[in-house]
Order: sequence, then C-alpha cells, then structure tokens
Amino acid sequence: MNYFSSNFKLGILGGGQLGKMLLYDTRKFDIYTCILEANNDAPCKMACNEFHLGDLMNYDAVYNFGKQVDVLTIEIENVNVDALEDLEKKGVKVYPASKTLRTIQNKATQKLFYIDHDLPTASFSRFAFTSEITEALDHESLSFPFVWKRAQFGYDGTGVKIVRSMTDLENLPNVECITETLVPFKNELAVIVARNASGETKTYPVVEMEFHPEANQVEYVICPARISDEVSKKATDIALKTSQAFNHVGLLAVEMFQTQDDQILINEVAPRPHNSGHHTIESSYTSQFEQHIRAILNLPLGRTESKVGGVMVNLVGAEGYSGDVVYEHIEAIMKMDGVTPHIYGKKQTRPFRKMGHVTIVNKDLREARKIAEQVKNTIKVISE
Amino acid sequence: MNYFSSNFKLGILGGGQLGKMLLYDTRKFDIYTCILEANNDAPCKMACNEFHLGDLMNYDAVYNFGKQVDVLTIEIENVNVDALEDLEKKGVKVYPASKTLRTIQNKATQKLFYIDHDLPTASFSRFAFTSEITEALDHESLSFPFVWKRAQFGYDGTGVKIVRSMTDLENLPNVECITETLVPFKNELAVIVARNASGETKTYPVVEMEFHPEANQVEYVICPARISDEVSKKATDIALKTSQAFNHVGLLAVEMFQTQDDQILINEVAPRPHNSGHHTIESSYTSQFEQHIRAILNLPLGRTESKVGGVMVNLVGAEGYSGDVVYEHIEAIMKMDGVTPHIYGKKQTRPFRKMGHVTIVNKDLREARKIAEQVKNTIKVISE
Repeated sequence: MNYFSSNFKLGILGGGQLGKMLLYDTRKFDIYTCILEANNDAPCKMACNEFHLGDLMNYDAVYNFGKQVDVLTIEIENVNVDALEDLEKKGVKVYPASKTLRTIQNKATQKLFYIDHDLPTASFSRFAFTSEITEALDHESLSFPFVWKRAQFGYDGTGVKIVRSMTDLENLPNVECITETLVPFKNELAVIVARNASGETKTYPVVEMEFHPEANQVEYVICPARISDEVSKKATDIALKTSQAFNHVGLLAVEMFQTQDDQILINEVAPRPHNSGHHTIESSYTSQFEQHIRAILNLPLGRTESKVGGVMVNLVGAEGYSGDVVYEHIEAIMKMDGVTPHIYGKKQTRPFRKMGHVTIVNKDLREARKIAEQVKNTIKVISE
Repeated sequence: MNYFSSNFKLGILGGGQLGKMLLYDTRKFDIYTCILEANNDAPCKMACNEFHLGDLMNYDAVYNFGKQVDVLTIEIENVNVDALEDLEKKGVKVYPASKTLRTIQNKATQKLFYIDHDLPTASFSRFAFTSEITEALDHESLSFPFVWKRAQFGYDGTGVKIVRSMTDLENLPNVECITETLVPFKNELAVIVARNASGETKTYPVVEMEFHPEANQVEYVICPARISDEVSKKATDIALKTSQAFNHVGLLAVEMFQTQDDQILINEVAPRPHNSGHHTIESSYTSQFEQHIRAILNLPLGRTESKVGGVMVNLVGAEGYSGDVVYEHIEAIMKMDGVTPHIYGKKQTRPFRKMGHVTIVNKDLREARKIAEQVKNTIKVISE
C-alpha cells in the first residue's frame, strides 16, 4: 500500500497531546490522518485531515470511524475494544491489536499475562471489589503495606495508592482492583520497544524516572538511565520479551522497577507513545512519534540511538490555580542552553493537569540534569 | 506581550513548504497562527488556526489580513510591500521589515545595498531591459562570459543564466535585469543569522552547497562545510555584518561564494527560513523554523550548534513526469541510517518542482555524505 498518497487513511483514537505530537510526523510524511475525539477543543483539532467528534468508549462511534480508515491506532488505552475487534474482522489493521488492549485495559488481566508468559512482576492479588480486601486482611492472606490499584480506567497515577493501614483503605472507591506487594526499589526504569508488522524490532535506550525525594512524584525522565550496563541489558531484554509476548505492532513502553538487589520487575505497559519517550523528539535520531508511525505502517524502523543526552520535565498545573492557563517565566527557561518547551494547547489549567513538557538536551547528561533543575524551579503553570 | 495565549496572533504570508515547517513549531509552542495564501491546496492548509485565501501581491489582501495580527512574517519574498509599510505605520510588527523586503525584492537594489554597506559582492551592471545589454557589449563596457539575473520575481534558480555568447542572450525575457561578473568559485557557502528585536544575534554553522560536477545543480547541502576555520570565520563575519546592515529581525540566510583565492563574495540573501537550513530540524539544537519564531517574537534565541553532522538532499520532480505524485523507493531510503524524508504535501509533481527534502544525520559527516548519495540514487519523484 502507498501510504504517501491520499488514497490511504490513518485513524487515531484520541486527540490529546500524544495525538498532537503524532500529527507532527504524519504532517512531515504527508500521511492523511483522521482523529476521533470527544472534546471539540482538543489539541488535535488542527493538523489532522479529518476531525471527528465522538466518544471513544462508544461502540458505534469507534466502529463507524474505524471502518473509514486503513490503519487504526490509539493515543489512549480507554477505547471500545469490541468495536476494534469487529474492525479487525472487517480487515482494518488495528495497532495495538484489540486482544492486547483488552489484556492491558484491566490491570488484573495484565498481571496474569505477565505470569502466563514468565515475565517478572511483583506478586499480587485480585479483588472484584475493594471491600473484599478487608476479608483478605482478616484471613492474613494479605498484610500491610501493599499497593492498591484500580483494575480499570486509572491514568497518570490516579487509581494507585500505597496502603499502610485501614485508614488508607477507607476512601478508596469500591471497584475491581488488585493489590501488589510494595517493592522497595532503587530506580524506576522504562524501555520503549518498537516493532513493525514484519517483525523488525528496535529498542530505545533505558530511561530513568527520577523521583522527588519527598513528594514521591516523578520529576525528571533521564536518558540514558544512570545504571550499570548489566542492569540496562536486563531491562532491555525483559522489555523485548514483553513486546514479543504480545506479538505487538507499534510502540510498547515498558515501565519497570529495579529492586534493591538489581532484579527487574515489570510495573505496567503502555501500547503507544509514552511520556517516558518525549525526550526522543530532541535527543534521538528518531522521535518516538515518528517511530510509532513507521511501525504501524510497516515501514522500516528508524535509528533509536541518542544524538545527545536528554532530560524531560513535565509541565503540570500548579496547585491553587484553575482557569485560563499562563506559562509564567517561559521566556526565562527559553534562555537556558538546549531547552525546548512543548505546550500542548489545553486552554484551561487545573492542579496537576499535564499542560506540556520541557526537554533539555546536552552532550553532557549531568549538565542537562542541572539545567533541568533550573527549568523546574523557574517555570510555573498558573492561571490568569 | 504573552505569545503563549490566544490573545496573540501571528500572521504568515505564504502557505508553501516553508510555512508548513514553521507551523511545526507554532504548534509546538501553541502559538495562534494565521496564513494568507492564494492556493487553496497549499501545504499550510492544515495546522494553522486560520487559513485565508488571497493574493500576496495584492495590496488589499495583504493589508486586510495583516491588520488582524500582532506580528507578521513571510515565507516568500514576493509580497505586496506597500501594504507591509502601511501595516508597520499602523503598529503591526512586520519581520522582515518592509524596507528590507523592498531592497531584497529587486536584485539591482540588493546589489547596491551591499556596495553602500561595504559588503563584498561580485561587480555588476544594471539594465532597465535585457535588450540594452547588447549596447553595453557593443561599447565594450561588458564582455562575455557574465551572469544574467532577472531583477525581480526570480525564484529557485529561475531568472538566472550564464551568458557566454549572443545566442545565450536570445531567449531571455526583456525585463529589468543585472549582469554580474562570472566568479569562478571553489565553494558556494551559506550562513543563517538569527537576530531578535532586542538585538540578540546567533549564527548557524557555515554550510556548503555541493554541486553535481556536470549538471551544475546543487546536490547536497552539507553542515558543517568542509572548509578551513579561517574561511568559515570570514563567511560568518560577513553574514553577521549583512544582518546588522539590514538591522534585520528574524532569520537572514546569506549565500556566498568562496573564490579561488579564498575571498568571500555575497551572492544573495533570503530574509526567512531557507533551503540551506532544512538540515537543522534534525542536526541542530534548534531548528531554523523554531529559531525564526523565537526571533520575530523577541524570545531568547536557541543554541545554533549541531548535535550531529547533517546532509540535505532536495526531492525534486523527475524529468518526464507530471501529475499525481509518487515517491518511488521511499521505503528503501527509510531503511538507511539516520534518514528522515520530509514530504511537503504538494499533490502534483512536475519536472524540478520542489516536492520535499531528505535529511541524513550522522556523528561522522563523511558517513552522512555517503548515505546521502545512496538516498539520491534510490528515491525518485515520479507520477502515477
């Protein structure tokens, strides 16, 4: 098929920032692209060939959109999988596959998948309702502390809680969930694996999520991770094995823990471009967004090496501000060496909302990390 | 002024490939952007906030468009300068300034500008009509060979001819023109100077245009140029002096000849992003398009160093093909190391039409140059 002609149509489910950044590269390759998205003000409104309004969880919306395109991909996991399955039967190429999305959408089935495929992950228990956890505690089949995770519809850290006592359990929603052993880890790592339909596979360098020592929030994504070659190889091998287990086409971002004794445990996966790969736009030979497009169109994959060291800082809405967004001191950070802000184009800020990100690149990674800290301490996402 | 809010509007005159690539970065910064363009199928149709149809040489079209924006820039020199002058009086920030465009639009006034400002350029004569050249030849104030250049409305090498005999003169249009001494040069070089309204100035590394030994056409743009530090410094200084002479805001691409005895002569300038800077998207810390936006919005300029060596190949329509475009063997070049095709999105190809470009980056510039040759010998822009 000739992707570089207007007879070909690529569909994307979701019109947020990931879709927006995918559009940079569909534009670069001049690939005809259609977006389905529920929010008429979404960042993807521009730069696509067709913008369709619709609910991604609605069967008819997804099916009727999908049957108009040749290849269908996602920028968010929470989409109607039944529609995708029927589209696959109709001959639409759906990447990631409906089967993969069904496994990943539910954290319990995702964990079972790792166990079935001999992929290392923290041990866990599955509950139909949060209220059943109390019973398990009574029977001593579970003990504090543990990690509670909502099985479905969590995102950006919502739906995850460290539970140390009965009090922590009290305000959790009574939904399907899992509990996981709390793993004391040295590092949180991630590897993005790209694989095209022909089976060509490439991995990006391992990145490290550096946490704020007190707030327990990811502050910086650092590429390459400051870890030994041995740990790096182990993490890369596990990520590759995971992509193969899913028989995945497109990008698969594999988030992992490096334990105190240097074991690697899979935390979770995302079958799409991922926050941990945003730095690739500036730091890599091939941005993750271009790579995702290459993979799902079965084009040859691009080089995944870094040109320079990269550090990424998320721009999230500051606490105490809601309303029309202002990027305070953005000019000051643009003065710093190798700094590129990405503004997603969401009109309204609210506390912790992802409004953009900043990439800092430098041949010397330590220098990039230093500048990243200055960026973090300078720019503030507030309201008018 | 807060550029990162929807109260600010940036206007661009022209909606071709340069405008399209500017839009990558207005999207990245979420800057509200309006395009004026005569072709309803232009590459810029998408990814701008407002697309206005109109003739760039028409006073009313340009004036009425320009009065709606805060900052106005161009992606092509042939626009109505009277309208720009009146917009400046009205308080619209126009970069490049109408005065600069008026000087540059006419090759005779452009040459006089260099002489007035003590900037080195090949000696020349000015003619109101091509027919007057014969008289100068008769009076021996001019002799073969020389370079004939149309004073106005030339682009991409049209409007330039090496004249070696009376026969070469015969088919030239009878228009205002200049004749220039034919300079036997070692290299054609270019330097892009960025300057913002506050006067902050940065230069990109000198690039070299490598010519096909027989066809006398630029085949590769190579960054950095394979020249001595001394020549590089001389070219950079002259480019800087040129930008200062124009009191220029935005990008100024200065094309120069390196003569056999290592003198630098200015060939011509372009007050905007330029073909010789396309490689910066992949090779530099800051793409020329982002830099142009930074400069005209008076934001701090980004780093202009290269991350890696870069070579650029233009994708022009092959001879003998006109009609719906096909990029033959594009998948084969995407297999090569560090290769990124840019497809401009023009639906129709014709011989020599600029349809896209390909950038090849590599830490080893010689390797990039080798791969560029493979790219050139592989991809072909033909019709269906």
